[in-house]
Amino acid sequence: MISRRSFLSLASASALAIPTRAWSRQSPRPAINAARLRNRLERLSTHGRPAGGTFADGVSRVAYSVADLTARAFMIDEIKSADIVPRIDAAGNIFARYGGQPNQPAILFGSHIDSVPNGGNFDGDLGTFSALEVIQAVQAAKIQTKHPIEMVLWAHEESTAFGIMTAASRIVAGDLQAGDMDRTWNGMKRSDAIKRLAGNPDQIETAIRGKGTWHSYVELHIEQGGTLDQARVPIGIVEGIVGLHRYEVVIEGVANHAGTTPMGERKDAMVAAAQLTLAVRDIAARRQGRQVGTVGQIAIEPNSPNVIPGKATLSVEFRDLSEPVIRALDDALKTRASEIAKETGTTIAFTLSSANVGVPTTSGIQAAIGRAASALSLQTRVLPSGAGHDAQQIARLCPMGMIFVPSVGGVSHSPKELTTWDDCERGANVLLGTVLDLDARDSV
Amino acid sequence: MISRRSFLSLASASALAIPTRAWSRQSPRPAINAARLRNRLERLSTHGRPAGGTFADGVSRVAYSVADLTARAFMIDEIKSADIVPRIDAAGNIFARYGGQPNQPAILFGSHIDSVPNGGNFDGDLGTFSALEVIQAVQAAKIQTKHPIEMVLWAHEESTAFGIMTAASRIVAGDLQAGDMDRTWNGMKRSDAIKRLAGNPDQIETAIRGKGTWHSYVELHIEQGGTLDQARVPIGIVEGIVGLHRYEVVIEGVANHAGTTPMGERKDAMVAAAQLTLAVRDIAARRQGRQVGTVGQIAIEPNSPNVIPGKATLSVEFRDLSEPVIRALDDALKTRASEIAKETGTTIAFTLSSANVGVPTTSGIQAAIGRAASALSLQTRVLPSGAGHDAQQIARLCPMGMIFVPSVGGVSHSPKELTTWDDCERGANVLLGTVLDLDARDSV
Repeated sequence: MISRRSFLSLASASALAIPTRAWSRQSPRPAINAARLRNRLERLSTHGRPAGGTFADGVSRVAYSVADLTARAFMIDEIKSADIVPRIDAAGNIFARYGGQPNQPAILFGSHIDSVPNGGNFDGDLGTFSALEVIQAVQAAKIQTKHPIEMVLWAHEESTAFGIMTAASRIVAGDLQAGDMDRTWNGMKRSDAIKRLAGNPDQIETAIRGKGTWHSYVELHIEQGGTLDQARVPIGIVEGIVGLHRYEVVIEGVANHAGTTPMGERKDAMVAAAQLTLAVRDIAARRQGRQVGTVGQIAIEPNSPNVIPGKATLSVEFRDLSEPVIRALDDALKTRASEIAKETGTTIAFTLSSANVGVPTTSGIQAAIGRAASALSLQTRVLPSGAGHDAQQIARLCPMGMIFVPSVGGVSHSPKELTTWDDCERGANVLLGTVLDLDARDSV
Repeated sequence: MISRRSFLSLASASALAIPTRAWSRQSPRPAINAARLRNRLERLSTHGRPAGGTFADGVSRVAYSVADLTARAFMIDEIKSADIVPRIDAAGNIFARYGGQPNQPAILFGSHIDSVPNGGNFDGDLGTFSALEVIQAVQAAKIQTKHPIEMVLWAHEESTAFGIMTAASRIVAGDLQAGDMDRTWNGMKRSDAIKRLAGNPDQIETAIRGKGTWHSYVELHIEQGGTLDQARVPIGIVEGIVGLHRYEVVIEGVANHAGTTPMGERKDAMVAAAQLTLAVRDIAARRQGRQVGTVGQIAIEPNSPNVIPGKATLSVEFRDLSEPVIRALDDALKTRASEIAKETGTTIAFTLSSANVGVPTTSGIQAAIGRAASALSLQTRVLPSGAGHDAQQIARLCPMGMIFVPSVGGVSHSPKELTTWDDCERGANVLLGTVLDLDARDSV
């Protein structure tokens, strides 16, 4: 058995104020089992795979679907096979804890396994199964950590189900409002959905956890963007999770016959929607920085080739780490929308449908990830997360950090989503190193 | 009984090379029964009216629907009540003929009663029931026409059903291809649809009529545009029915995460679709003339607020009386589309989904309409029809003309479609006068 401190010896000692020692020649460095990780991810992929498809065809494993249920059962079996006892909370989240001294808060790490429809095999899956690997690596290396180490599978992360993103970690962080359990989606009540996961909607408040429950939270995730892949850097240290303002925009014009209404007399909602779409792009693109703006959804009425569209409903979102930047983008768009409405004879109404404030990660965890990567001679790059993650909810309860690995071509939410097995292994080992690094600190 | 020639006495004699006489003081001018016309249109409106609605709520009377069937039965009853025998051809068109000398070709006039979903009470309906009024007015005035006068209710005019416009008059004009009867729409085979109308799909070719079948064809219709309403002119003389090129345009980009993909790395199909939509408008609007261009339909994939659209499918159409003008618009758009594709990193493919060559109306019928309006002291304006009509199909068989009446606010294909009852009466009387004017001529 090696001590926790001996593991830390390979971290860049100069950056640390704690004593370090060289690895003993007898004890191999603790490491995750890359072959087992790959095998589990390949088996997980069969839950929700298109009929007749292969791993390359991705998955549809929407939260609460049959595929989600069987995948969770698979995960529970794998946890049990590691001689750890899984626990399901009232929201359906699966926790499994190992080791540590009594009365010490646990170090939490994990991700999710639900997917978007026609999603990929790495988004969430990698971080969840790597968390189990971390526990098994610690077990295998017979390391006795000071803090319990605890993995988590968040029950419902993607916004597909009930239109809510990171729904299960939100509850844990305390977001629970009257009527939440009565919301319906696809004819299913949210309370019934949670029951499918062996959660307990009648005592849902027991899932809420207070500040101080955990020592810290770390999530390994694929980048879902192309920055690391293009730069050929294997490890991303997330500086923060961007904030988001999402609007439902309704444009009202006048539907009329496409053959008989002169160009000058039209109040064409599609023309106004087109102008607004280009305004979103231009406003996001013309400013220095990494902010983004997207129109991802549109419906027009009556949506017939021979009728001038009388109504358009579209989604608009802006994202950035900085809330003031997002507000400036909003203001610029609304100003431009007034001009467009005037020019096209339409009305344009904005309703804020979703808002998240950007969440910075904890600098102490950023440093721990850097040390863990450095110990493995892996290059790192600090970057923001453009996507939302459960980590941003848990940041309300304890110090939080995220590790990114490259997405080939920056593709995600698609069957083409790909992270190489070597990068998966590197990411999981950096997660392991980070957890052990954090274990050496009483506070981050 | 008055003679046909005596009726013509009020037409502008100077424009005619035929003898004219003043109306005899004893014989009232033949006229349609405006109260009956209104009453019939109001009763027709109940077939397809929204539950609990009124006349102002419009109709959904899509071809082959139950509402269409019961409305046709109502029309057949009204025809029979005028002591005329209706005949249904193999395509489901309803004809009813009155008077005339043996071996003379009939003068045909009529329209349709099928509607778009959520359509109005005048598009087609007015021309169809005015046709019955014309026959009844001739009966009432005991006029013996030289040519049989024949009304028609075209079975299927709107493009809603099977995606085909003026489907039933196309068959009469000879458009019939192998497999047409096997097309399906909403799970219904076209042959079965036609059987619902008491048509005979097994002998569908018997519906085809040759050149020379009719002396001429006249259709009264609402303008469906705002020209007459704005100019406060009660009668439009249609100079031609515009041609149309309609494309299905498919734009392929790359779907990707809306939060993680920098603006400069996107291949956003919605942005390309927006640029194309504005190009259609600009290309149609910047040129002198009455050409129009419309994007009336769009679908994007995956159509999710947090995913950059990877694919957009949209309809584009250009209309004008002149085929060379339409071709020039097409060319300009395709040139611009190449630039848009290059700029956005997308591919843009055009498939011609529908094309109609513009059809001029017969100048002799334009003149007859002018004389009939003048006899009633009604102002006229010559204008194109931006919409397609059964008249453009029948123009292949005989001289053709169209009479327009004002659409309030230019609105059509909407429950708000409105033509005042006074304008309905004026239009029907001009149709009557035109038919009697044409009856005086062996050829137009």
